Amino acid sequence: MSSSSMAVEISKVRAGVPEAVTDSVAVEEPLELRLGYSTPDGRATRSISITMRTPGNDRELAAGFLYTEAIIKRSADIASIETCGPPAPDSGNHNVLRVDLAADVEVDLGRLQRHFYTTSSCGVCGKTSLDALRVTGAEAFGSQGASFSRNVLTGIPEALRSAQHTFDKTGGLHAAAAFNPEGDLIAVMEDVGRHNAVDKVVGSLLLKNGLPAGELGLMVSGRASFELMQKTLVAGIPLLAAVSAPSSMAVQLAQEFNMSLVGFLRGDTFNIYAGEERITE
Amino acid sequence: MSSSSMAVEISKVRAGVPEAVTDSVAVEEPLELRLGYSTPDGRATRSISITMRTPGNDRELAAGFLYTEAIIKRSADIASIETCGPPAPDSGNHNVLRVDLAADVEVDLGRLQRHFYTTSSCGVCGKTSLDALRVTGAEAFGSQGASFSRNVLTGIPEALRSAQHTFDKTGGLHAAAAFNPEGDLIAVMEDVGRHNAVDKVVGSLLLKNGLPAGELGLMVSGRASFELMQKTLVAGIPLLAAVSAPSSMAVQLAQEFNMSLVGFLRGDTFNIYAGEERITE
Repeated sequence: MSSSSMAVEISKVRAGVPEAVTDSVAVEEPLELRLGYSTPDGRATRSISITMRTPGNDRELAAGFLYTEAIIKRSADIASIETCGPPAPDSGNHNVLRVDLAADVEVDLGRLQRHFYTTSSCGVCGKTSLDALRVTGAEAFGSQGASFSRNVLTGIPEALRSAQHTFDKTGGLHAAAAFNPEGDLIAVMEDVGRHNAVDKVVGSLLLKNGLPAGELGLMVSGRASFELMQKTLVAGIPLLAAVSAPSSMAVQLAQEFNMSLVGFLRGDTFNIYAGEERITE
Repeated sequence: MSSSSMAVEISKVRAGVPEAVTDSVAVEEPLELRLGYSTPDGRATRSISITMRTPGNDRELAAGFLYTEAIIKRSADIASIETCGPPAPDSGNHNVLRVDLAADVEVDLGRLQRHFYTTSSCGVCGKTSLDALRVTGAEAFGSQGASFSRNVLTGIPEALRSAQHTFDKTGGLHAAAAFNPEGDLIAVMEDVGRHNAVDKVVGSLLLKNGLPAGELGLMVSGRASFELMQKTLVAGIPLLAAVSAPSSMAVQLAQEFNMSLVGFLRGDTFNIYAGEERITE
């Protein structure tokens, strides 16, 4: 029953003249994620996040979120993913998802809390908080691995655009796609949140045992932020390409971990902010 | 010392030909927010959030965040806002801000936790989580108050664009602005995060004792999500206009609280998704 667009009655004003028309908007609904996991005293269940997302590929979103937040390390860490309870009465969408982890997975929920609600004392005043945001255990990429030709890169935005079915209707969704050096799209996902679109792609790869994905690149429809660069790093993907601009910390993270970062990928032009050696003629 | 753009050396590829050039990217750095407040046992300090933001107007960002998250209700609730410790060694920016609340302010930090890390039992399974996201105590707007002519609305994007100094350099920043029925921009803010840009505008109004702002409209450079609609509602602003598309829940929230929602405001065209009565000829 999940639908990614919704019809609305609007007034469209052109040159001062209003007209009543039916339009489509991208659906945005909350997804609550509950985690079942082992503790020294037995099993526990905890609600760990509420995310505004576009319904669809919720399993991939949950798996990708848990992976990019480093709560899980492999697809086998997930025992089951199931909707919880009846669908929401107003939309018919299942907005609560329960992920049960395998019995032997040790969970550090403090990781999630540190992101959102830290309890550090004032002793670290003035220290840049960047360290706290770093993914623990992530290693810089080596010089081996995938490379992408300029022609393949400039073809990805059009391929992605063609695959954005809900964007065509609503003009309001971000998209992300994994692609290989031949320019084939391996997974394409849409969402009102760009971090969700990336989590859905990463989760899709994870559930097919395709992570880390050192032979793939990742394309996003918007800008390249620190958060998206970090998710790309955790997924083991050496190249992030964005239709729009990168931020300073995305550039710094790419440089530090020997990743490739491409921005303003439009038509036959793009900017390489880091890792030019992976981009070939 | 804070700067909102940073020079980077890039390789710009046009029609297959790379060229080394110096470019600018929008600065993104973490801001840690610490809150000093009264408890039954005395004063306490707690780190309540780390946000990736573009340095500049951090005081407004902090004040706006606390207001739109309903931690504070008036500017007098803030006793002081001060940077904490020395600047970050790598950038020279102060990335830790300490807000001390007035002695008589009662703080419900559970509000913040509920957003990010809930502990509800499985007893609410299947219930739409929308209720949990709702701002407690927000009331629907009445039919009185500001109205905006079509001409004023279509003039705002160009005025906002002219005021986006960092966007001009980097192409990578969101912007938000409060405007009055005459079309004057009252506050304009830029940030890599669109929710931050809105919080900065709201904080700027708050610190000038300008909230609730029932006589103003709010313009954002990107899309209109549920989160931005909710911040607009909490600020008491009856109209949100966006350059791009709204989401389904932004439309629903606008309808429920009798707000006006305008999308795809470009050139002399725009769509009215709710509250057409506030938009005059």
